[in-house]
Amino acid sequence: MEEIKPCAANSPPLTPLGFLERAAIVYGDCTSIVYGSNTVYTWRETNLRCLRVASSLSSLGIGKSDVVSVLSPNTPAMYELQFAVPMSGAILNNINTRLDVRTVSVLLTHSESKLLFVDIFFCSLAIEAIAMMTTDPPVLVFVADKEEEGGGGDADLADCNKFSYTYDDLIQRGDPNFKWIRPESEWDPVVLNYTSGTTSAPKGVLHCHRGIYVMSVDSQIDWTVPKNPVYLWIVPIFHANGWTYPWGIAAVGGTNVCLRKVNVPLVYRLIRDHGVTHMCGAPVVLNMLSSTQDSQPLNRPVNFLTAGSPPPAAVILRAESIGFVISHGYGLTETAGVVVSCAWKPQWNRLPASDRAMLKTRQGVRTIGGFTEIDVVDPDSGRSVERDGETVGEIVMRGSSIMLGYLKDRIGTEKALKNGWLYTGDVGVIHSDGYLEIKDRSKDIIITGGENVNTVEVETVLYTNPAVNEVAVVARPDEFWGETPCAFVSLKSRLSSKPTEEELIEYCRKMMPRFMVPKTVLFMNELPKTSTGKFSKFLLKEIAKNIG
Amino acid sequence: MEEIKPCAANSPPLTPLGFLERAAIVYGDCTSIVYGSNTVYTWRETNLRCLRVASSLSSLGIGKSDVVSVLSPNTPAMYELQFAVPMSGAILNNINTRLDVRTVSVLLTHSESKLLFVDIFFCSLAIEAIAMMTTDPPVLVFVADKEEEGGGGDADLADCNKFSYTYDDLIQRGDPNFKWIRPESEWDPVVLNYTSGTTSAPKGVLHCHRGIYVMSVDSQIDWTVPKNPVYLWIVPIFHANGWTYPWGIAAVGGTNVCLRKVNVPLVYRLIRDHGVTHMCGAPVVLNMLSSTQDSQPLNRPVNFLTAGSPPPAAVILRAESIGFVISHGYGLTETAGVVVSCAWKPQWNRLPASDRAMLKTRQGVRTIGGFTEIDVVDPDSGRSVERDGETVGEIVMRGSSIMLGYLKDRIGTEKALKNGWLYTGDVGVIHSDGYLEIKDRSKDIIITGGENVNTVEVETVLYTNPAVNEVAVVARPDEFWGETPCAFVSLKSRLSSKPTEEELIEYCRKMMPRFMVPKTVLFMNELPKTSTGKFSKFLLKEIAKNIG
Repeated sequence: MEEIKPCAANSPPLTPLGFLERAAIVYGDCTSIVYGSNTVYTWRETNLRCLRVASSLSSLGIGKSDVVSVLSPNTPAMYELQFAVPMSGAILNNINTRLDVRTVSVLLTHSESKLLFVDIFFCSLAIEAIAMMTTDPPVLVFVADKEEEGGGGDADLADCNKFSYTYDDLIQRGDPNFKWIRPESEWDPVVLNYTSGTTSAPKGVLHCHRGIYVMSVDSQIDWTVPKNPVYLWIVPIFHANGWTYPWGIAAVGGTNVCLRKVNVPLVYRLIRDHGVTHMCGAPVVLNMLSSTQDSQPLNRPVNFLTAGSPPPAAVILRAESIGFVISHGYGLTETAGVVVSCAWKPQWNRLPASDRAMLKTRQGVRTIGGFTEIDVVDPDSGRSVERDGETVGEIVMRGSSIMLGYLKDRIGTEKALKNGWLYTGDVGVIHSDGYLEIKDRSKDIIITGGENVNTVEVETVLYTNPAVNEVAVVARPDEFWGETPCAFVSLKSRLSSKPTEEELIEYCRKMMPRFMVPKTVLFMNELPKTSTGKFSKFLLKEIAKNIG
Repeated sequence: MEEIKPCAANSPPLTPLGFLERAAIVYGDCTSIVYGSNTVYTWRETNLRCLRVASSLSSLGIGKSDVVSVLSPNTPAMYELQFAVPMSGAILNNINTRLDVRTVSVLLTHSESKLLFVDIFFCSLAIEAIAMMTTDPPVLVFVADKEEEGGGGDADLADCNKFSYTYDDLIQRGDPNFKWIRPESEWDPVVLNYTSGTTSAPKGVLHCHRGIYVMSVDSQIDWTVPKNPVYLWIVPIFHANGWTYPWGIAAVGGTNVCLRKVNVPLVYRLIRDHGVTHMCGAPVVLNMLSSTQDSQPLNRPVNFLTAGSPPPAAVILRAESIGFVISHGYGLTETAGVVVSCAWKPQWNRLPASDRAMLKTRQGVRTIGGFTEIDVVDPDSGRSVERDGETVGEIVMRGSSIMLGYLKDRIGTEKALKNGWLYTGDVGVIHSDGYLEIKDRSKDIIITGGENVNTVEVETVLYTNPAVNEVAVVARPDEFWGETPCAFVSLKSRLSSKPTEEELIEYCRKMMPRFMVPKTVLFMNELPKTSTGKFSKFLLKEIAKNIG
């Protein structure tokens, strides 16, 4: 038995990149991407365009271990780059377009990005960020958008001399017969996604080909995605690669309906015009879609997978009454996608709609194919808590799609990956039926409109204000955004002039992305503390919850 | 980048065994298995029964690297053992119940099987096989079948003293809280499936946990199996573990409808009574179901995945007219399951039914999640042939579900796994659209009624007859069986008495399983040979095709 070992025939590295060439064979004549009024591609074209871009990157000397960044909303180019960049052998780094200049600059420096694709509407963000860099800046590639007013081409661009290439250049000069670069090992990194970086140490989550392959396949099987779905791109692809659906939708030959910005009338129009069957989004989007005057009963059911924060039962109920079929999942950037989902039990169909919605708010069990073990443990002892739906503990996970680690952050990696588990920082319970329910996202994280805000980063900025003595930032519940950052501040004594709430908010605005800026600042003489001298965030959250 | 390495949190071994515990959580109250009039289990029960059997095996000292064999048709016990045996850490070896005593004995010896589960109706086969062994025989476990007349229990059994345990014993004394044994490495073998062994060297195909995991997930995604399907067990589980569907159906919480023997009225009754949605089977079964007076139009579509040999277009057409929705795949025991399938292009739906059926006879492209590369090569140079639908070559494959190798057969393994590929021995073409079509199964293989017959084995037996000078066995087309073995024989000169066709057939019958026995024997003075002195099997096949 011992002589039997893996060999080249049975151990090619798992990777999601092969889904594209299969789609080109099977679904070559089918629509891969639609966008705006005039942009339509087939899977044959998408495959060739990706090969061309990959070959051009390769010609520019980009290859293994190089990081290539992208600053773009959900355009066709953004979709293509999820394949094209790793097909050149490089590591793909999508950057959140909502970040501020300074953060973008920090991330480009930290990742040592070699090349940056920039959507036309984010050129000034990119150029300013690069101006702040003290290390070698990335080569800039300009991505036009002919579907958008003012997005038409190089000529419109003030700073066009800053750009070395255009995306169209790379496609035109690329070789459609390029042999895409397969990973040498399935453990080779393929994507780098930052979860923070404004002021605290940047956390760059690295995932390998194997992890993304397993997650992409699972994203299809767990949600029972059929062949040729029509998928609407609500989730920003810069959020954990759109939960791996760029690769998953290629696997099943779906149509990707791209859009630059989410607005309710547009979403309903795209659903109707293209016969959308599937979409993913944070609960805040589900809320938007189901609670405005633009909400429209759907002609036929649309599958909606929501994740990112716990969806309120009322939102689920309202969205389902319109015709959305809601699935609910849970994941982190560190898990590459949704690794826990509220797997539906047939017998629950007999319950009233309101009970069904309540059950659907639970995060659930491990997904079918992701093969992730989930536990809730006492963070000190590491022991599993009682599965009684009451005893809270830290949620830990182990599985094939758990990150390799944080780039250049050994200590952060060791803190997150220990005892054979990923420690999520999230607090939850396991019910007696084995279903996980989150009781509190990580104490340091606020989720506002689908974006994660690291409270420590906001606190660090506020501490730089000379008037501030103590500061603690917590989540304040918000009907629209889910949560907003709320800062509790005590000021230094003997100040000549005390800053106002507005002044502190304005101070933050200059130092961080808009979504991170506290919507509320409350002054206290002294912040309440726990017995161990830490700020009592529990108490502060209670106060934030009850302010009028 | 180099410091980032896989760790315990992100590299737990991939295995299909975890599907069962998930099914017990999510689908605990749903039916897992139905059989006969009175046998119904839920997934909670199936999980506990498997844990009990695994724990009993463990108590008996069975563990890692031990082979445990099973001789059974598709009963509930057979289904359970696909999980229970590997959950004890052992390697599962299903034995084809259609084999003869001698072959079973050869396989038990070759595999050094430690324990053999025997269905009540195969007790004499097992006991006689063990009597022929000269090495340590396996411990025998008796599996009763209360649903079947004469299958009731130990008391009915003549040779009950040969059996050390009953299956019920193992369940009753087992521990339902047993911690099932996870593989130390995903490359650890989990199943051993023999593809031959009558007279030639036994070929025991070993597959590892990783390969079976990938194949099981793929078996669901490529066929778009929904949650909670109702799956009818036509394909014998002893054929390549029923193409991995035992594990796949657990993953999606399906109902397994078990049956001991395939007969047409029973199949239609089970489809109706249980609302069957999915079934797999060889083309011969599809033919049976669609061409007898018992054929019945289906109330609602039933998905039928056919593989094992190329299905004739007429059979596809007829089956689809009854209401079967046919998918067609291709695989070998060496690939663990279906790794190529005739992926359907939406535009084909516009074609007439007969054209659709013709297209469906092609084997197709690699499956979605199996991640298998397919090529057709010149067997001498190893170079890819033209993708013109005309140039034939040997079909080669590389992928995650390709076997580890043949047990105790280094030379056979090296012959099959070389240059980074599995050489299938099958001959095919690749069409210009990238779809594979088989032109000839391996020259040494005849597929008769879904069973593979190794012609070399039949020839070897015939050569042992003192009257035989030369022999070549080829496939003869047969409307019912697909193919049957046809032997061309030249006899020695100066024989006192020449054997008749019937006598040679009778001679074979004593030496091999019934399905292998030639249905036709043709005498020639001298067998036609090629320029290199080999028998011209091509010419002989032409003759066999045209005999009246």
